[in-house]
Amino acid sequence: MPSILVTRNVGPAAMAKLEASGFDLIVNPVDAEPTRAWVLENIANPDVISVCLMHGQGSDKVDEEFLNACNPNLKTVSTFSVGFDHIDVKGANARGIKIGHTPGVLSDSVADITTMLVLMTMRRVQEGIDLIKSGGPTAPLLTPCARSIPLANALQWPKLPWAPFVMCGPNIGHPNLTIGFLGFGRISEVVVDRLLAFTSKTAPPTILYNSSRARDNQAQLDADFSKRWGTTVRRAEVDEVAEKSDVVIVLCSLNPSTTDLVNAAFLKKMKKSAILVNAARGPIVNSEDLNAALDAGEIYGAGLDVITGEPHVAPDHPLVLNSRCVVIPHMGSADMDTRAAMGDLCVSNAIAGAKGEALVAEVKV
Amino acid sequence: MPSILVTRNVGPAAMAKLEASGFDLIVNPVDAEPTRAWVLENIANPDVISVCLMHGQGSDKVDEEFLNACNPNLKTVSTFSVGFDHIDVKGANARGIKIGHTPGVLSDSVADITTMLVLMTMRRVQEGIDLIKSGGPTAPLLTPCARSIPLANALQWPKLPWAPFVMCGPNIGHPNLTIGFLGFGRISEVVVDRLLAFTSKTAPPTILYNSSRARDNQAQLDADFSKRWGTTVRRAEVDEVAEKSDVVIVLCSLNPSTTDLVNAAFLKKMKKSAILVNAARGPIVNSEDLNAALDAGEIYGAGLDVITGEPHVAPDHPLVLNSRCVVIPHMGSADMDTRAAMGDLCVSNAIAGAKGEALVAEVKV
Repeated sequence: MPSILVTRNVGPAAMAKLEASGFDLIVNPVDAEPTRAWVLENIANPDVISVCLMHGQGSDKVDEEFLNACNPNLKTVSTFSVGFDHIDVKGANARGIKIGHTPGVLSDSVADITTMLVLMTMRRVQEGIDLIKSGGPTAPLLTPCARSIPLANALQWPKLPWAPFVMCGPNIGHPNLTIGFLGFGRISEVVVDRLLAFTSKTAPPTILYNSSRARDNQAQLDADFSKRWGTTVRRAEVDEVAEKSDVVIVLCSLNPSTTDLVNAAFLKKMKKSAILVNAARGPIVNSEDLNAALDAGEIYGAGLDVITGEPHVAPDHPLVLNSRCVVIPHMGSADMDTRAAMGDLCVSNAIAGAKGEALVAEVKV
Repeated sequence: MPSILVTRNVGPAAMAKLEASGFDLIVNPVDAEPTRAWVLENIANPDVISVCLMHGQGSDKVDEEFLNACNPNLKTVSTFSVGFDHIDVKGANARGIKIGHTPGVLSDSVADITTMLVLMTMRRVQEGIDLIKSGGPTAPLLTPCARSIPLANALQWPKLPWAPFVMCGPNIGHPNLTIGFLGFGRISEVVVDRLLAFTSKTAPPTILYNSSRARDNQAQLDADFSKRWGTTVRRAEVDEVAEKSDVVIVLCSLNPSTTDLVNAAFLKKMKKSAILVNAARGPIVNSEDLNAALDAGEIYGAGLDVITGEPHVAPDHPLVLNSRCVVIPHMGSADMDTRAAMGDLCVSNAIAGAKGEALVAEVKV
């Protein structure tokens, strides 16, 4: 009897859909990440023809070890994520295994968090929270008037000498901003939709984006984007995105060409008044270089939904301690509707794969 | 020689405009809040015909004491704020003193912070920050799957047992949300513009608002609002706003009728899944009642740009300690462009008043 292996309970509605599929289910009996050994043992079972794979913290790597352990009947691995940097897609495809993922359904949710991080970073919210919660920001205040303020050892809110520009940040509505994207897929497009509700109507921002390669129809594509959003939108090289942007937003996929893309050299090219937001994958931004750039005032601030090494990030991580950086624990797609939709798409891919049908959303590389 | 009294340096551009006005200036010599005695002494000077008053932490109260100390030639007091709860407007007007303030120029900036707080609160960002920074959230996690998680004493990010719905909050894009406003002036209108970039396009939110009194043309006004935003917008009583809203946004002015408007009774009427954002004035929301409602799970979360007693809010204030509440230090209008525009409007009011002309923006009560 053919089976679908489920590495983790994916929520009540998605589990019900799996149960109604007619396939046997082999479900991880505990509501926690399975051990790697449990995964490897079960994918060797010749009855398993499809895997519904929770994006976890190690047990989910589809690497040579995983692929060598797979039984020859396995048709599909369906990951509960849009990103697939934990999966050797070419290796899987070479063995006749299709990879499913969950694009589209999380674009709005990640775009919400990305837009929120842009606002939080421009408006210095982490400094504000630190001021209230724990004795003040960890770096000197940034605004002109504030530079002349003698910083007390414990600069708490009651002791903050208020002045017109104290705790002021740059304005998302400032005329003629430049907003730069590294990666310009579905999520970036939704972020543009969101940000244009905040930016200047009379002098709208220029949108620069870098994508992995220029398209043949690049000029037409950019003309279409510009028309759609009523402002200049065009592809640019990475250096130009760094140099010209007031807001740099990282939303590319993680691969060897994007690892450390935002490094010391990139950060030095950025404006001192510019901010950086990463809502993609941690290793695209070099943490040490970012922290040094923030401390040196090379950029104004940073907002991170993701960080290298997550979730193994200690409270004394330099970027966590730095008031010019807000770090949140990879909550990009963490709303209840979105996770339910991801669960639905994940099991739909697994069921379609088990039936030998085309996946609803297959990773193509 | 007629003089303008300037209680605080209002920034370089605004100070230059004052200097170019032709009036003598009496400027607080230190870049800090003046003493009350300094203010009272200087407004008694018969040369002072206009006051440019920085919104401060006590020295700026225009009360009976202030009005009794004013010289008889004083024509205008111009506050560097849109709110005027620190000013006895009727008392001032009765003595022939006009009050200027700074409406309009800060609407976008406050709307940005308000929208950001809606997103932060729905998406549980304070819990996320606490998880990373200081050993975990201070209240049990809220989402269904999370309830079954045994909470470690130190629930830091590395120890968080990830599951599909852990740290998930409600979705701003959920179909048919109800968004309720207490106060529906300029800032609220801009907040609606912003939020509609995030909410469902196919099932847009209903907007309910309470304003101090129904207008004669209320039906037409609501029809115009509904047409403008392409969804149902209507005035509602306070109780209906509390009962039906998924998001309650406080943006009314502070006065005796709005003090403690959001109290235990209001909070009990709210949905357990609803959030509250206050970007107006602290005392409109009762802090003790809010903290009790959060701890009892009567509402889902709160985001506060303002809080009763500010800035005298200690790090161990119950709402500051509560992970279900994000508190930021009254940063609503704190972007550099906006504060410069407020400075310009503040000095323009002061100069117009000194000249005996109509103020650019006069408080009318």
